Amino acid sequence: MSDLPKRVHIQEEGPREGFQIEPGPIATADKIRLIEALAETGLDHIQVCSFVSPKIVPGWADAEDTVSGFKAKPGVRYTALWFNESGLNRALAFRDKLAISGSISLTASEGFTKKNLNRTHEENLAAMRKQTALHLSHSVPVRRIGVMAAFGCNYQGDISPTQVISTIEDGLAIAAEAGAEITDISLADTMGWAMPARIERVLGEVRSRWPEKRITLHLHDTRGLAVANAHAAIKMGIDRFDTTVGGLGGCPFAGQKGAAGNICSEELVLLCHEMGIETGVDLDALIEVGRMAEAIVGHQLPSELIHAGSLDAFRKAA
Amino acid sequence: MSDLPKRVHIQEEGPREGFQIEPGPIATADKIRLIEALAETGLDHIQVCSFVSPKIVPGWADAEDTVSGFKAKPGVRYTALWFNESGLNRALAFRDKLAISGSISLTASEGFTKKNLNRTHEENLAAMRKQTALHLSHSVPVRRIGVMAAFGCNYQGDISPTQVISTIEDGLAIAAEAGAEITDISLADTMGWAMPARIERVLGEVRSRWPEKRITLHLHDTRGLAVANAHAAIKMGIDRFDTTVGGLGGCPFAGQKGAAGNICSEELVLLCHEMGIETGVDLDALIEVGRMAEAIVGHQLPSELIHAGSLDAFRKAA
Repeated sequence: MSDLPKRVHIQEEGPREGFQIEPGPIATADKIRLIEALAETGLDHIQVCSFVSPKIVPGWADAEDTVSGFKAKPGVRYTALWFNESGLNRALAFRDKLAISGSISLTASEGFTKKNLNRTHEENLAAMRKQTALHLSHSVPVRRIGVMAAFGCNYQGDISPTQVISTIEDGLAIAAEAGAEITDISLADTMGWAMPARIERVLGEVRSRWPEKRITLHLHDTRGLAVANAHAAIKMGIDRFDTTVGGLGGCPFAGQKGAAGNICSEELVLLCHEMGIETGVDLDALIEVGRMAEAIVGHQLPSELIHAGSLDAFRKAA
Repeated sequence: MSDLPKRVHIQEEGPREGFQIEPGPIATADKIRLIEALAETGLDHIQVCSFVSPKIVPGWADAEDTVSGFKAKPGVRYTALWFNESGLNRALAFRDKLAISGSISLTASEGFTKKNLNRTHEENLAAMRKQTALHLSHSVPVRRIGVMAAFGCNYQGDISPTQVISTIEDGLAIAAEAGAEITDISLADTMGWAMPARIERVLGEVRSRWPEKRITLHLHDTRGLAVANAHAAIKMGIDRFDTTVGGLGGCPFAGQKGAAGNICSEELVLLCHEMGIETGVDLDALIEVGRMAEAIVGHQLPSELIHAGSLDAFRKAA
């Protein structure tokens, strides 16, 4: 008997993660071109932008133009990110084009919460209570708890599974109080601390505690272990991953300014296909989009696969 | 019960693999500086150069000067590579400084043998018979069989475990005929076709056939799966890996000119240490040498870890 999933869901976040961190400027037309090309590869979930302050994230000053500009492909779920009421309102203006849903976003490391948000964990819980009520008051469903720094933290060191469990419990309490039903838990290795045994331990504990919740892993390849971590998770039956084409993105946190971004979409797709697991994605098409992303940002992206090409291309030629 | 090894042996090949492929020119003094810095990290096996034709590999025209130039550290085994009598004679001139031993080098893919060496498998066996005799006539021990393209081939596609077994049998026959006792088998993923399940299958078959032989894995990170492959192998008890600091090197084979090189030494060391496995290597020191290697070659190396820094550095600061 195997825990291997039949299908793995690739949640592409390249546009959102990538363009927020690139020094750019990246032309809006190029962002649109990338989003439209991604949709042609078979990906059915694409996070297209952040509705954030252009003062803080100048790379997303053109979020509205980008969302207005791309032609939506039927069957693809387009999402966006926001952190406050202003951002939510900007997203709601695109309710016809974007799938709008809320998230209770917490961090397993109080050290990170303080440095990143300048809040204590308690203050962050209060902010999330408010944000959950805000979402529900706009009839925006809140079904997801996100836990950042779930595997370790630059500011606090190792994070125990107990801290992760307790953070999820805090999120579930906020949801219950607000009358929101949580179906999804997302665990993020925000600063690249995960390794396979740690993945297995944390996932094991979360899953045995809440077997009915769907789990998404958000992995960063900060230290080169992201694919090994994904492999360990897939073997445990985890079937949802946030990824970025070409490995777009990076890590803005302490001491890691030049570090790699998220796990590369195409490397995860390759791994799945070689394991006999479907993704619905045309790998060779996705590799081409990775090369397009590299041309758009104008520097080498971390993906090894976009430089080497897929195995199937060689199999066909052999 | 666990198959995990207590200690993993890192066989550093950065200088040899890296400087043969860099467009350079790299100053001999820089090569020497890198070799000496590697020896200070706790690595006890460093492959320092190739004795090959300077017409074919101009990057190693200064092999003699490099080997003469570096100060050997007691306890470190320095090795070199050669492919013919001329190369062997050049290596033998450094018998006091280099550990000289021979290898029966075969390829599991006849397609690769033809393209890379312009020989049939039979012709390659004849060449290896001659080379084994040559080594023994110089009192150079031949204890190792190397199998290239053991997990797949750009020119032939997938390679079955049966082909790998049969290639090793060919090597053992050559050794037996020459009176050489083989203690080591090295399996190389020359063009980056391996993935974890394939690693497990091939290693499982080789090990159950020859349980007394030591196995080395030579992994390339051509498609980003090298660390996942190493992890799968370590979990099966494999404890010897060829690696390159910073991911120096590359892949000169069909369609992969811009592809990544070997698995990064420091990423494998990180993985081992996080698994509680010793390597004898000071990871932070090795990361510094990776940064030195990047400065020497003058372009970004594939290692993510040298850009992000180790976890222990953050643990200490937290």
